[in-house]
Amino acid sequence: MSDAKTMRESGSEFMPKFDDKGLLTAVVLDADSSQVLMVAFMDEEALGATLESGEAHFHSRSRGKLWKKGETSGNVLTVEEVLVDCDQDALVLKCRPKGPTCHTGARSCFYRRLDEGILQPVNS
Amino acid sequence: MSDAKTMRESGSEFMPKFDDKGLLTAVVLDADSSQVLMVAFMDEEALGATLESGEAHFHSRSRGKLWKKGETSGNVLTVEEVLVDCDQDALVLKCRPKGPTCHTGARSCFYRRLDEGILQPVNS
Repeated sequence: MSDAKTMRESGSEFMPKFDDKGLLTAVVLDADSSQVLMVAFMDEEALGATLESGEAHFHSRSRGKLWKKGETSGNVLTVEEVLVDCDQDALVLKCRPKGPTCHTGARSCFYRRLDEGILQPVNS
Repeated sequence: MSDAKTMRESGSEFMPKFDDKGLLTAVVLDADSSQVLMVAFMDEEALGATLESGEAHFHSRSRGKLWKKGETSGNVLTVEEVLVDCDQDALVLKCRPKGPTCHTGARSCFYRRLDEGILQPVNS
């Protein structure tokens, strides 16, 4: 195992690993219920803005720019804790949501489950 | 809003949306504790193999091929439920892990939290 890999997996240094598009994956959980609220991507700018402000920022792949969650709706996500995975290319953000996280108005973007090939509403 | 977008967000049809590399994001949760165990990517082949077998398969970005989780270690993930997000480009897999999910031997890949710029072990 290379030294860089060892340091990333075992060390205490935060060495976020962005992919070839400059992105890593962020999974947002509700800090109280641990429900998964949304999944999005961060580039270095979005990660920096999140850590500096304490509110979740992402990189919009469709718009190709920094996106503060809730900048339009007011439904910001206050970050309580950040978990980092083994190879440091994915983060879990435990957040307090100010309102519905999904743009559809649902509490979570994951409002359907797959049931024998058909999507069914999730009660949550 | 386009019809395709409406159908994806509101419909009961499973229309997984793969990105320009043919991938979508999969977040694995422990079906009992709801702890986030790992985050990985699926292409159409991995999604099909997962749904057919009931055991989690991913697409290894580094190796560029289908990867059955646990194919070497035996630590397979049996999928109990699949949640789908609003635009169908991310899945949550609620799984029963047969052993530690992380290749480091940790129960979850998210075994560290970021504390003022430094990674600290998570007790879980």
